[in-house]
Amino acid sequence: MSIAEKVIYVDNNATSKVDKEVLETMLPYLTDNYGNPSSMHYFGGKVGKALDTAREQVADALGAQPTEIIFTSCGSESNNMAIRSILETIPERRQVITTKVEHPCVINVVKWLEREHGYKAHYLSVNSKGQLDLSELSNAITPKTAFVSIMWANNETGVVFPIEKIAQIIKRKNPNTIIHVDGVQAVGKISIDMSNNLVDMLSISGHKFHAPKGVGALYVKRGTPIVPFLIGGHQERGRRAGTENVASIAGLGKAAELAKKNLKDEATRVKALRDKLEQSILEKVPNAILNGDPHNRVPNTTNISFEYIEGELILLHLSDAGICASSGSACTSGSLEPSHVLRAMGIPFTAIHGSTRFSLSRFNTEEEVDYIIEKVPTIIDKLTQISPYRKEIEKKRIHCANLTDIPQTV
Amino acid sequence: MSIAEKVIYVDNNATSKVDKEVLETMLPYLTDNYGNPSSMHYFGGKVGKALDTAREQVADALGAQPTEIIFTSCGSESNNMAIRSILETIPERRQVITTKVEHPCVINVVKWLEREHGYKAHYLSVNSKGQLDLSELSNAITPKTAFVSIMWANNETGVVFPIEKIAQIIKRKNPNTIIHVDGVQAVGKISIDMSNNLVDMLSISGHKFHAPKGVGALYVKRGTPIVPFLIGGHQERGRRAGTENVASIAGLGKAAELAKKNLKDEATRVKALRDKLEQSILEKVPNAILNGDPHNRVPNTTNISFEYIEGELILLHLSDAGICASSGSACTSGSLEPSHVLRAMGIPFTAIHGSTRFSLSRFNTEEEVDYIIEKVPTIIDKLTQISPYRKEIEKKRIHCANLTDIPQTV
Repeated sequence: MSIAEKVIYVDNNATSKVDKEVLETMLPYLTDNYGNPSSMHYFGGKVGKALDTAREQVADALGAQPTEIIFTSCGSESNNMAIRSILETIPERRQVITTKVEHPCVINVVKWLEREHGYKAHYLSVNSKGQLDLSELSNAITPKTAFVSIMWANNETGVVFPIEKIAQIIKRKNPNTIIHVDGVQAVGKISIDMSNNLVDMLSISGHKFHAPKGVGALYVKRGTPIVPFLIGGHQERGRRAGTENVASIAGLGKAAELAKKNLKDEATRVKALRDKLEQSILEKVPNAILNGDPHNRVPNTTNISFEYIEGELILLHLSDAGICASSGSACTSGSLEPSHVLRAMGIPFTAIHGSTRFSLSRFNTEEEVDYIIEKVPTIIDKLTQISPYRKEIEKKRIHCANLTDIPQTV
Repeated sequence: MSIAEKVIYVDNNATSKVDKEVLETMLPYLTDNYGNPSSMHYFGGKVGKALDTAREQVADALGAQPTEIIFTSCGSESNNMAIRSILETIPERRQVITTKVEHPCVINVVKWLEREHGYKAHYLSVNSKGQLDLSELSNAITPKTAFVSIMWANNETGVVFPIEKIAQIIKRKNPNTIIHVDGVQAVGKISIDMSNNLVDMLSISGHKFHAPKGVGALYVKRGTPIVPFLIGGHQERGRRAGTENVASIAGLGKAAELAKKNLKDEATRVKALRDKLEQSILEKVPNAILNGDPHNRVPNTTNISFEYIEGELILLHLSDAGICASSGSACTSGSLEPSHVLRAMGIPFTAIHGSTRFSLSRFNTEEEVDYIIEKVPTIIDKLTQISPYRKEIEKKRIHCANLTDIPQTV
């Protein structure tokens, strides 16, 4: 099978396919209904209704009220908006808490608060399974803590943090602390009900759940102080300037509706596919190690390290076989450093470099998973032959074969 | 003709129709080619090329280098990014200059600099034709001036400022001053060549020239200091975080290419249509007054005040007749105040309230213009009958009829 024939896409935590229904919802606003929702004429009013519908759909998927939804251009903007807002809403408290495994757009904004605005930041550690120590969190909260930003699910490992519990701990220690959750990797994968937790803000990103790139939202619980990040016009009730990206917002609304509808499929069928993929690889490949908490995880993600093999090489060979995945290895993520998430978990460098993430979606089939299961051991074996660490891998292979009594596929 | 049959859209300064070729350019990235350009696999690389092409197209349309183009989510983001960057790049100089007729996303950012960061701002005046006094500009520039933000073309009146000359004046007085131009209403309407002026930054917005909403760009001349506004990932060479909005960026590129190609049509055919529309209305309607400099203007815009008539009513009646235009009247723009642009020009309130903007595009036809010319006098006459200021208007009508000897259409 050549890539020209078929692409097997298991890189859905990076970005996902736009659902056909989403595109159909968008098209009228990219063709006939192109008015500006701020315009007074009939033509503008018509597109304004699309924003209302989308806001209701997104709110419904999150267990929120429509007025609590602010549309943005992406998850990064939502995170920037949520965090940087405290400069004006809570200028008197200059302590923030986040984790060592957040997305760069949270970590780098927190570093910017430290560098440019004299904030004191506490970066919570994780253990080898990527779990937080909740007593560390509790101890870190002081009367001066303005803000806590913690992700719901990790993009690299899929590890899910106990957000409801975390929010309770924070509010118990300091009720004035604003809690922001980067929910970008959680929406569409696990159930989210903002009416049932103490979280004040939640960032979401459309293209992670089959809406197009370039649209996101920030949920802001009623009563939570917020100032615009994009300053200018009156759009989004004065909370985000700029002509609304109507087509993409309409698509985001439809995608949110579909995400809610497909949650069960995600938790069962997609999870079964992920589990099959993961177990087969762990069984068949001797130097394969699972990264992250195997239990508290989103159902679509598996992060596997192939020790002593370079992630770039794995990706290129997978790509040649028509399989799109990603790696925590340096260079593959556009940054110069290997995965800060796996490093925070204490994963040895020999394993980080060969880490590979497979992130599935509702569009993946069992046939595709079987194909990946067939290809991966062959690729890893081939790369083992040319690895300078071949001997270390061979030792593992013998050890592994003895343990599991499963013949190694070559 | 009912609106269900046809919409005559002359509100292109608010937003414009997505060109069919633009949509065709976008569709592959909303369907099969949905990869993340940051991904290492073949599938990601393929969409990365779309960004390169678009960057070249936008650069070419602006007389810029591709590396000088940063893609953003809208014109408002470009303006926020350009202006707010000075907080970090020029922290030692806290004086800024702008004009009283800028778009809210420039004026409100400058007000924010004053309020939150202690900046001193000078807002340049305009005369009754909307023109700047260049000696006022020259006098306002001091050694402490960090930044000047001046629009190229005004969204409401279409008045064009002599940007090349303005840039020379600024750099002569203080070569360290960064010059930012809001080019949102200029692109696609007049020729722009950034290689041939002293402007450091230029904001553009896709949906004003037949690209979709939700995409824009900031031109940053090589060597000009800039920091990211959206902090996070490495995208846009570290200058703008967030997964790139590939489909819309590809659309922006195509739209820029088409804008360049259609500039001549804009300067001739569209201008002729605008002139016909404007002259006919000014001739046929006694209480009609042209707002703005009739000579230094973009070719597509005319702003006409119908004295003593409420703009909202004009728009609603135009809308009923299938004509989409806009007004500088309060409430029609989503803000509570009538047009700050017309107020800065000293236009009396009786004329501001009835100001109506017709902004054409290459998709308008002579037939459409003839239809508007037929409808407008009827609508204004009807509204005159119910106006409490009917007597004032009647006086003008007689005066006007005597002067021009043109029978009034009813």
